[in-house]
Amino acid sequence: MASSSPSPGASLDEWRKNATFDGGKMRVILQGGREKLSLKDEIWQTLEKDTLFKKPNRQLSLDEVRLLTHQRWKKVIEYGFVCDPYAEYEKFSALLEVLEEFDTALQARVTLHSNVFMGALTSMGTEKHAKLIEKGNRNEIVGCFALTELSHGSNTQNIQTIASYENGKLVFKTPHIGAMKVWSGNLAQSATHAVVFAQLNVGGKCEGVHGFVIQVRDEKTHRTLPGIRIGDMGEKPGQWNGVENGWMIFENYSCSPDALLNRGCELTDDGRYVHSFKSDRDKKSVSLGALSIGRIGIVGKGVNACRVAATIGIRYSAVRKQFGPPNGEELPILSYPLQRRRLLPALSAAISIGFFQTKMVDLFAQYMARVLSGEKSDELGELSKEVHGLSSCCKPRSTWLGVNALAEARAACGGHGFLYISRLNELRDTYDPSQTFEGENNILVQQASNYLLSQKKQGVLSSPMGSTDFLQSRPCTFTGWKGDSIENVISAYEWLLHHTLNKTEKALEERKRRGEDAFTARNETQIDTAHPLAIAYAELTMIKWAIEGVEEIEDEKCRCVLRRVIGLFALSQLQPHLDLLYIGGYCSGPEFGTRVKEEQLSLELSLSPECVSLVDALAPPDFALASALGASDGRAYEHMVEDFRSREIDRAPFADDLVRVIQANKDKAKL
Amino acid sequence: MASSSPSPGASLDEWRKNATFDGGKMRVILQGGREKLSLKDEIWQTLEKDTLFKKPNRQLSLDEVRLLTHQRWKKVIEYGFVCDPYAEYEKFSALLEVLEEFDTALQARVTLHSNVFMGALTSMGTEKHAKLIEKGNRNEIVGCFALTELSHGSNTQNIQTIASYENGKLVFKTPHIGAMKVWSGNLAQSATHAVVFAQLNVGGKCEGVHGFVIQVRDEKTHRTLPGIRIGDMGEKPGQWNGVENGWMIFENYSCSPDALLNRGCELTDDGRYVHSFKSDRDKKSVSLGALSIGRIGIVGKGVNACRVAATIGIRYSAVRKQFGPPNGEELPILSYPLQRRRLLPALSAAISIGFFQTKMVDLFAQYMARVLSGEKSDELGELSKEVHGLSSCCKPRSTWLGVNALAEARAACGGHGFLYISRLNELRDTYDPSQTFEGENNILVQQASNYLLSQKKQGVLSSPMGSTDFLQSRPCTFTGWKGDSIENVISAYEWLLHHTLNKTEKALEERKRRGEDAFTARNETQIDTAHPLAIAYAELTMIKWAIEGVEEIEDEKCRCVLRRVIGLFALSQLQPHLDLLYIGGYCSGPEFGTRVKEEQLSLELSLSPECVSLVDALAPPDFALASALGASDGRAYEHMVEDFRSREIDRAPFADDLVRVIQANKDKAKL
Repeated sequence: MASSSPSPGASLDEWRKNATFDGGKMRVILQGGREKLSLKDEIWQTLEKDTLFKKPNRQLSLDEVRLLTHQRWKKVIEYGFVCDPYAEYEKFSALLEVLEEFDTALQARVTLHSNVFMGALTSMGTEKHAKLIEKGNRNEIVGCFALTELSHGSNTQNIQTIASYENGKLVFKTPHIGAMKVWSGNLAQSATHAVVFAQLNVGGKCEGVHGFVIQVRDEKTHRTLPGIRIGDMGEKPGQWNGVENGWMIFENYSCSPDALLNRGCELTDDGRYVHSFKSDRDKKSVSLGALSIGRIGIVGKGVNACRVAATIGIRYSAVRKQFGPPNGEELPILSYPLQRRRLLPALSAAISIGFFQTKMVDLFAQYMARVLSGEKSDELGELSKEVHGLSSCCKPRSTWLGVNALAEARAACGGHGFLYISRLNELRDTYDPSQTFEGENNILVQQASNYLLSQKKQGVLSSPMGSTDFLQSRPCTFTGWKGDSIENVISAYEWLLHHTLNKTEKALEERKRRGEDAFTARNETQIDTAHPLAIAYAELTMIKWAIEGVEEIEDEKCRCVLRRVIGLFALSQLQPHLDLLYIGGYCSGPEFGTRVKEEQLSLELSLSPECVSLVDALAPPDFALASALGASDGRAYEHMVEDFRSREIDRAPFADDLVRVIQANKDKAKL
Repeated sequence: MASSSPSPGASLDEWRKNATFDGGKMRVILQGGREKLSLKDEIWQTLEKDTLFKKPNRQLSLDEVRLLTHQRWKKVIEYGFVCDPYAEYEKFSALLEVLEEFDTALQARVTLHSNVFMGALTSMGTEKHAKLIEKGNRNEIVGCFALTELSHGSNTQNIQTIASYENGKLVFKTPHIGAMKVWSGNLAQSATHAVVFAQLNVGGKCEGVHGFVIQVRDEKTHRTLPGIRIGDMGEKPGQWNGVENGWMIFENYSCSPDALLNRGCELTDDGRYVHSFKSDRDKKSVSLGALSIGRIGIVGKGVNACRVAATIGIRYSAVRKQFGPPNGEELPILSYPLQRRRLLPALSAAISIGFFQTKMVDLFAQYMARVLSGEKSDELGELSKEVHGLSSCCKPRSTWLGVNALAEARAACGGHGFLYISRLNELRDTYDPSQTFEGENNILVQQASNYLLSQKKQGVLSSPMGSTDFLQSRPCTFTGWKGDSIENVISAYEWLLHHTLNKTEKALEERKRRGEDAFTARNETQIDTAHPLAIAYAELTMIKWAIEGVEEIEDEKCRCVLRRVIGLFALSQLQPHLDLLYIGGYCSGPEFGTRVKEEQLSLELSLSPECVSLVDALAPPDFALASALGASDGRAYEHMVEDFRSREIDRAPFADDLVRVIQANKDKAKL
């Protein structure tokens, strides 16, 4: 075999020549601006030079990956990319983006301490905890967050761990196996401290769920403290073995009452519990408010999943040739409409939700600054509800899209997509849990429909962030395709939102009239009503904010191609709602549905010459993606063969045994 | 913590009490009848007693799993469950079902030799190969099948490996890296022989793709023979590391011309190639006919995937409690309509496609018997086309459903579903490649639409298996819901098939009129036309054959509940086509779509008390499923805790290093 023979694949550079825009400019736009991009690139370059960050071409064992994650975490701290996460917010967020794109587990190792644990201390603690916060910022302790229990995840208000205030001490108990703390990341092996949620018991009375910060391991010996038992949750799919999810059982663990994260409440020296919460809701908003920041972050995980799915899927499809016209050359499979349908919507989602996410993060940062400043205005109350409602449906929408994009990209790459070195299954498994953590998606979306229902009931037609402004519009049925695709899609969504909102409201009223309790009525009105309402709310807001983001772009060529990208996202999101649009009477006859389908096909065709360069603007560096199929040089075949050649086999380890079996079968036949 | 505390979960036995049918009778029905069930149970019992078949609660390394698969394969042979796969067909098929449910890789280890390699020898070879067939049947050789090349999978006619007939010898060459054989299971470590496909070159003329059987390793030393290089493809997801997929490069490997699998053709001693094929199509039907049996088998993989998804998802959801009415107890999550929607369609698919598959396998066996007897009738020709057309869309439909069912079940089990010991991600990854092997699904379905188009063109309105009989009906638009759900669904499908068939045909004609070649025209008319046509064809046939199977059941209670199951399958399959039914004009206004959705909801409610017992009738034994969440005793929490407790950690292996890092950070702060 001639090793100098030409590559069997097509050239990515040929595809790149066809793009209508400047790749460098597009990369700046899609990576969050010049400043953030240069911060990210600097970190990427450092990591790329360090062999510790070279990805192996096989799955590591649990012990191997734990050690490697520990070593990488240590190295990230040593590099000192960021000294103070709060003062250097831009730098810290660039670092987290890089780590997330490099390895989810490593990102989790950092954020579980710096964002989740420290965030809880900051938002729920008081000056009593200032010293611990300082130590945390300097990495002199390792923190974890322990809320979920074996038998309670979504229903956090019903957790069963008990913290009793007895004789001036807080005593933690795990009353039964259902109450053991589970899934706490960093807990199994590294944590010295934990934020723990428990039912606070004072003088025989349960005061409800509260947060506490406790020490779990000795700082010098790193052994578990008496009264606590800690263990590992075992193996998990994807990159998650790198995260030490732990379980914890309390056997009368006792500590100072200063452990209570006492913003708004206090344990007095004479054994009482006092608080300044106006309502139960008020209390919950302190103790569990820390969670909504997580959901907004996870929208970004969906974006990332779509990015890597599109990157690997599109690059490989641009290179892979199969079949062709009679007597012609074989064509790259990306030339086929069906293959574009499998990959281009994921690309459009990565870009569109990316724009949405940028705006959402900005608005959320402004919101949090107002909350932390102690503002208590009505408008802030409204904003708080909107943040909660919108994040509760956008996190599900984004993560579903991301996981599905990776699954589809795997299959679209055919058999070779199934190789470990394609990374697609590992990535799918890596993003899979984003669908269930920080709120199982199907339960979470119910928060969004509840929010819209309560807004409507109270007659609140607009919202601080503008996401419910559609309530002010008068929904119109379809009378003909007018203007561009996005306008038509938005009109259909606005009608659909009114329609499903009214339908849900009526169904709930009807059930209540029949004597059903509110809980049952809500459960029975999810499918075909509240559920699609919440999803449509997420999608419409994503589309609107994405197009807003695009209109602000100065470079005309980039803006022009990105408009088409958002158009494809809008059309592909609307498609699954066509049935409800017809059944509900938004449209009838062939025009609307046919047009939606035709416009999507035509945008996919028009984006075909752009998509390789769009992917270049989104993709992480090759060493981080580490996909033989998705490398930016387009030499997918060569990368596979390089790996294969390193696995040449002369004889299997069990060859002697096999020869014996074969001989025995021969001997048997002779009898 | 009191270890005697009651389980936090609900009881599976309470659910079981609500079923309206006899569980034992149902198990006989759903496991293929009394005889097959007792054959399967016998094998299950033997394996369960053998510790070699105990599943570890962690992922094994590549080397570990290879060795274990080899040992298990050896043990299966030693047990002698089946002496002659052909003479004891029923027993052999029971064995394969058990192995598939136990571990896909082990099943592959057996079938790649016994079915794929031996099947190719039998169907393509002649008396020249009788001796090798005998040796194969006695496991004196280990066979593999090498068709796919690095740059050619779907387009098998364009493979590049060359077999030249020179000086009385066949000489094999791999002309470039794109032509290396890849993905050949059993090749990397075990195979002594391979069926290899190559372009046959005689006297400078290429005679097209032919099959050959060659020896690849020395039988005594088990070393690779000169002129051949073999290696491993590296790691793969799910259970597939147990399969030694290999690559192979030929460097002028030379062997006797008897290697040619010469049914219908011959290499003469004077260096010529002669054949008795009437046409190119005739030749292909010999050399590649061996593949359609594989596709029908893979329909069963989809069924199995749905089975285990439903088993784990439903059992855990019946036990897991979360939320509840105000002041009431928490409810098992299976009580919520949204949770049922996520799991019951998978259960209905497992059962419905199971009935379809049983009939399909029977008909295929009859067909193969006629082919092997040498029959050459027109009716057999028609049957051959139908087998090809139908298997080409049912394999995709079934495997898509199976993989999606596992993904959905994982998320429906929440966080705990993500534990390795739930097995759901491993199973999803295990079934994932069924979507791309033996024909990538999206390419394969095109064979089905091509078949329907050619039938219509030729005016053939009925077919030997009856699957195209709908062509005889006059499609009617919807005029009101009449009779039971299934009748309504079938009418809608028949209309949809006529509609999409006409639409595809017209679109193709229009494109040809505009001068497009047939290849391009076909590619451009997949989305929204040929693709949904093929899918609908698969679904309608599955529904019809499933209901036929159910009507033959004697026990009335079983029949009654299974009718509802098939009804749910029918409605849930039709739902995604509602848009085309409205756009195309089958229906307008709310009635049809609303009714389809209402009927599905109501069947899901009515099957809620049945589903745990239905799952019992389908499930593999606990030791084979090996899922902490899906155990038949319903003690999901206890099984998880047992595993967790075995992973109690006092101190991480890297604790010393961690303490040093923390101390260093403290020292830094003091400076």
